Amino acid sequence: MAFQKIKREDDYSKWYNNLVVNADLAEHSAVRGCMVIKPYGYAIWEKMQQQLDKRFKETGHSNAYFPLFVPKSLFEAEEKNAEGFAKECAVVTHYRLKSDPNNPGKLIVDPDAKLEEELIVRPTSEAIIWSTYKNWIQSYRDLPLLINQWANVVRWEMRTRLFLRTAEFLWQEGHTAHSTRQEAIEEAERMLDVYAEFAETFLAIPVIRGVKTPNERFAGAEETYTIEGMMQDGKALQMGTSHFLGQNFAKAFDVKFATKEGTQEYVWATSWGVSTRLMGALIMAHSDDEGLILPPSIAPIQVVIIPIYKGEEELGTISQKVKPLQEALKKAGISVKYDDRDTQRSGWKFAEYELKGVPVRIAIGPRDLQNNTVEIARRDTKEKMSLSMDGLTETIQNLLEEIQTNIYTKAKKYQQSNINEVNTWAEFEAALEKGGFVSAHWDGTPETEEKIKDETKATIRCIPLDNNLEEGVCILSGKPSKKRVLFARAY
Amino acid sequence: MAFQKIKREDDYSKWYNNLVVNADLAEHSAVRGCMVIKPYGYAIWEKMQQQLDKRFKETGHSNAYFPLFVPKSLFEAEEKNAEGFAKECAVVTHYRLKSDPNNPGKLIVDPDAKLEEELIVRPTSEAIIWSTYKNWIQSYRDLPLLINQWANVVRWEMRTRLFLRTAEFLWQEGHTAHSTRQEAIEEAERMLDVYAEFAETFLAIPVIRGVKTPNERFAGAEETYTIEGMMQDGKALQMGTSHFLGQNFAKAFDVKFATKEGTQEYVWATSWGVSTRLMGALIMAHSDDEGLILPPSIAPIQVVIIPIYKGEEELGTISQKVKPLQEALKKAGISVKYDDRDTQRSGWKFAEYELKGVPVRIAIGPRDLQNNTVEIARRDTKEKMSLSMDGLTETIQNLLEEIQTNIYTKAKKYQQSNINEVNTWAEFEAALEKGGFVSAHWDGTPETEEKIKDETKATIRCIPLDNNLEEGVCILSGKPSKKRVLFARAY
Repeated sequence: MAFQKIKREDDYSKWYNNLVVNADLAEHSAVRGCMVIKPYGYAIWEKMQQQLDKRFKETGHSNAYFPLFVPKSLFEAEEKNAEGFAKECAVVTHYRLKSDPNNPGKLIVDPDAKLEEELIVRPTSEAIIWSTYKNWIQSYRDLPLLINQWANVVRWEMRTRLFLRTAEFLWQEGHTAHSTRQEAIEEAERMLDVYAEFAETFLAIPVIRGVKTPNERFAGAEETYTIEGMMQDGKALQMGTSHFLGQNFAKAFDVKFATKEGTQEYVWATSWGVSTRLMGALIMAHSDDEGLILPPSIAPIQVVIIPIYKGEEELGTISQKVKPLQEALKKAGISVKYDDRDTQRSGWKFAEYELKGVPVRIAIGPRDLQNNTVEIARRDTKEKMSLSMDGLTETIQNLLEEIQTNIYTKAKKYQQSNINEVNTWAEFEAALEKGGFVSAHWDGTPETEEKIKDETKATIRCIPLDNNLEEGVCILSGKPSKKRVLFARAY
Repeated sequence: MAFQKIKREDDYSKWYNNLVVNADLAEHSAVRGCMVIKPYGYAIWEKMQQQLDKRFKETGHSNAYFPLFVPKSLFEAEEKNAEGFAKECAVVTHYRLKSDPNNPGKLIVDPDAKLEEELIVRPTSEAIIWSTYKNWIQSYRDLPLLINQWANVVRWEMRTRLFLRTAEFLWQEGHTAHSTRQEAIEEAERMLDVYAEFAETFLAIPVIRGVKTPNERFAGAEETYTIEGMMQDGKALQMGTSHFLGQNFAKAFDVKFATKEGTQEYVWATSWGVSTRLMGALIMAHSDDEGLILPPSIAPIQVVIIPIYKGEEELGTISQKVKPLQEALKKAGISVKYDDRDTQRSGWKFAEYELKGVPVRIAIGPRDLQNNTVEIARRDTKEKMSLSMDGLTETIQNLLEEIQTNIYTKAKKYQQSNINEVNTWAEFEAALEKGGFVSAHWDGTPETEEKIKDETKATIRCIPLDNNLEEGVCILSGKPSKKRVLFARAY
């Protein structure tokens, strides 16, 4: 293949960027910080969308669509939220271009077409949605309101990386309204569970569920729930968040409802989202130096069949044998591609599908025809085996399931063996150098959290939900602590 | 229902707006010219997306995603295209807000965060996509390149109407690259056929396929194909367009490919799109004074079941009977809702589902239980009938098909009886007053076309593809003409 091969151990970050580009997932665009998601990458994103959308609908949510723009006066209504996003907003100030009088064929912004009020390109949609909910919610009968939106958002990040941090990204954002605090908290937790289940069963990435510290909360939230994945370099990647917003947005936009008892109360809110960042997680959690490793459930092509032949006639004979196999696999719900192109040699094809992470490769040559066999290669373990054509569909089905389980199990083992419990500052620093997550006591103050971040670049990823209470002392300040939290360096 | 009922014959335009809002399809947002697509409206749009997406993939296209923003220098590269959209562009000029020093808690645009080059919010994506294709296309082996994108676009229209003309709208845009002129033309025609088939079989709206006059072409196209639907007020609605772009964008962005023979040639292009405007067409083509009439294929709820009861016990008995029916319908792939809310009376529910266009209503009361019957009401014809519970699933399946056909047939008859052939100016004016499309001779000049538009507000909707050659004289200029074209007033 005509590209530079980079090993994970040499330069993990460069390995990642190269893989994204070489596997045809995405590339940088002509617009600073914005990416182009290429067809192969987008096909994976579509599979994520389908699965998530199904889960959202099963939990009672409907999709809707709200405007791309937020008038500045609405944007600033919820002050904490506005403050949190103000520094990275794309702002529309004009609505027309005109011919440049000094430069024929060129255009300039028409100074006469200045907007009376600037429009912010949504970095998130709480403001525009809650200004709408004000008209939708009058009484307890209008609640709960369970809505999701698939959309693009823009956050003007200074340092961008394909999928992980881009100025524009694709995501879904759920925005729900409830009549009680408890119900809203339950919703926020429910959607975190939906994300966790999706990440583990579908993306084969084990995650840790927890809550963020106040410092790391979403701007405008009372509680931010998170799922944190561990990448192969031991760093953390925040894969999804679910926020309990309290009554902050209801108060900012004056959204009240009449209770059954006839009183007026502010509505309780949640919001939750995952984005194309999940593509980055998927790539970094599983892939190797040869390319992507995709769990079968997310792979656009689950099985590729490659003929090994000399001459047209041999190809014809192989193709005749392949056709019913291909049909049988399709019928079993397996996505299969037969690559009989004569413009590329089979060695090139092997490398290509390895790079693209196709879970199972079937090769068929003349000897296989004689023996009624095929050669199967697993992408995850690189094992090869010769198998009978008889009952092959069932064999492949089982193999795909096995691969899915194996990829998850491998990631789970890696995660478990890279969470280190420490009790002193020296142990903490040593554990961080080794990589992975560090479970340690923290005194609960933002000041200590900041100091640790400044000294080590490690942040508190979360306070795990399944944490046990345990007496201890803070690794930095030595002050008492009642539970451990998880630290890591993160993407 | 607590809303103002407006009849089509009294004020078609107001009837439309009211219906869109009252049926919970969409509403105006806090952002000038932008709409909120509400869950019920979005559910219909999702069904359109699914069907279209399936058809795009069946014809070999893949989805991808390109940036929301277009740098001004790229935007202006294809001059005709740029000129066509310059007057309605939202322009991002800054990337940060900051606290207003004079107004605590408020934000202002940070003058220090001015972009070096302004970004245009895409009104269409040819420019950004062709600047990308330049890197993707080197040789004939890279062609054809068949890509589609689902996205939001912004055109700063001064007069907006829900779904029909909004500043931001949702759409899909196909962008393909080909090695020959002929292949690109075939692609543009193929996608027009896909749109026409979708409109007729799925939306039950008959359309006329044709090409636009040079005046009405997409900015930057060599030929614009269109499907034109006729609304119930006789006006035309352009439902989808497919453009043969020649080599205009390839030349603007210098996209060449190496032919098999080793020469370098510019690539040939098409683009094609349909948008949330189709929602407007769907509403205006079929609905009546009571509300929406949705073809079953597009209806989010195809069958609603409403219990007619007094007291909890009766409801319980009815619900027991409904449950297996509901299951059987679901199993047959029919989307069904059982509305047993006790907060609304059945009369209210009848009106509600009529308003929302649910094709089939099933009512079950105590007498039905005795007789093993149900009462069925068709939304399209308003017919009611009492039917046996036995074999009901099959009956409903057939009924849904019949309704789909009936809605199409009705629209087709209306369309056919409202295309009037005229030969003189007097006849032309009279026909326009009557409403509908007018088939007439035109001398082929933009001047005549403009004059007719100025005098009558009628535009040439298209030169139908199935037009026969016929000698005649232009209705306005009296000059010779070789074929008729279709005029109409349009949305």
